[in-house]
Amino acid sequence: MGAMHDDASPHSSAPAQTLPELALRLKHFAQARDWGQFHAPKNLASALIVEAGELLEHFQWLTEDQSRQLGSEQKQAVAHEMADVLLYLVQLSSSLNIDLMQAAREKMVLNAVKYPAKGSES
Amino acid sequence: MGAMHDDASPHSSAPAQTLPELALRLKHFAQARDWGQFHAPKNLASALIVEAGELLEHFQWLTEDQSRQLGSEQKQAVAHEMADVLLYLVQLSSSLNIDLMQAAREKMVLNAVKYPAKGSES
Amino acid sequence: MGAMHDDASPHSSAPAQTLPELALRLKHFAQARDWGQFHAPKNLASALIVEAGELLEHFQWLTEDQSRQLGSEQKQAVAHEMADVLLYLVQLSSSLNIDLMQAAREKMVLNAVKYPAKGSES
Amino acid sequence: MGAMHDDASPHSSAPAQTLPELALRLKHFAQARDWGQFHAPKNLASALIVEAGELLEHFQWLTEDQSRQLGSEQKQAVAHEMADVLLYLVQLSSSLNIDLMQAAREKMVLNAVKYPAKGSES
Repeated sequence: MGAMHDDASPHSSAPAQTLPELALRLKHFAQARDWGQFHAPKNLASALIVEAGELLEHFQWLTEDQSRQLGSEQKQAVAHEMADVLLYLVQLSSSLNIDLMQAAREKMVLNAVKYPAKGSES
Repeated sequence: MGAMHDDASPHSSAPAQTLPELALRLKHFAQARDWGQFHAPKNLASALIVEAGELLEHFQWLTEDQSRQLGSEQKQAVAHEMADVLLYLVQLSSSLNIDLMQAAREKMVLNAVKYPAKGSES
Repeated sequence: MGAMHDDASPHSSAPAQTLPELALRLKHFAQARDWGQFHAPKNLASALIVEAGELLEHFQWLTEDQSRQLGSEQKQAVAHEMADVLLYLVQLSSSLNIDLMQAAREKMVLNAVKYPAKGSES
Repeated sequence: MGAMHDDASPHSSAPAQTLPELALRLKHFAQARDWGQFHAPKNLASALIVEAGELLEHFQWLTEDQSRQLGSEQKQAVAHEMADVLLYLVQLSSSLNIDLMQAAREKMVLNAVKYPAKGSES
């Protein structure tokens, strides 16, 4: 699996800064573990919501105010659950060949039409 | 609400290319609609999983193979559900002051330790 | 499909009062629509969480207090989302041959050990 | 907390056989632990979907066929996750004063209209 060598090259082993770079790292990571067979979009969408549940679990018994004031340890745990959601979201976008940032921009335009800002007519 | 003026500046109205730029657009979008009161982390984590459910709904009755071969219309719908997940994830990261890309990098390091690659010992 | 005739019999067409009766109605309902092929446990578990998301959607922007004071229309909508969750839960229990009420009783015993009641030692 | 005494009475300590009996046991269980303050419908709906995620986790990497053939140990674990979903669903129905079985019957009538059975016109 020659593509794996890229993974060790100075270029590709630099820390991911963008979603496409993150997608490339994740692709190599899954290939090196033969996980492609499991990563049907259906399964990735399931894994994503499972992680979203682990994320919500941190908040389920908190009041809204408490959820704004997490301690540093809990915040770290929450950050890693959020990372899990992002990692599956990026892998899903790769497997479907979807440009996630482009989709986000489109959705923001749609949202701006759907929910006009107060006073935006002035 | 002077901060809103930034939203109309040449710089900040350029399409978001990175997660921090997306976060800034979303912050202005929510401020212009007075949504800050609703956006406690607890609520954003709820909204995120609700969107993850809408995403999974597209796949629930498909076989894994069918999920790899979405038609263009369904793929567009899926892309927008994925965008919804990303938009809430980014807003949650803002409200908790979490660097999402940094968290993703940390989680990938942890995953590499937890799931060693086959043949990685050679 | 002779089993369908049972569905029209005086006995089985009586309104379901218990989970096993509900399970029987749902089995006939799915058989009459040839849905067995879609109802793998994996898919039913996906459908269940999708409905759980539609349920949560009613509450995501409410305060805890507001969630205790739903109007009658919203309460009706919530009741039907809860029904959807129950219907998939019951179908999943049928497909796995699991006695849901028995599992609930077992889990309550485990919970009583895990979370002793205050003052329960007296 | 005199109501707790009921919990130890021969009648109410009999194993729950129906959803209303289960609801009563859960009410006493929560009261004995002072959990009422946490059990706003919003929070119960969150806890429910978190458990639905733990349930789905068992299936996320399985094929549909594998999900039909769980081993006995995994089936037991799945049964207890399903119980968790049911326990929160029942507590939510209590807190909203919703008759879950009645809602399920209503939803089945609506589904029969929405999805007519094949050949049901004969």
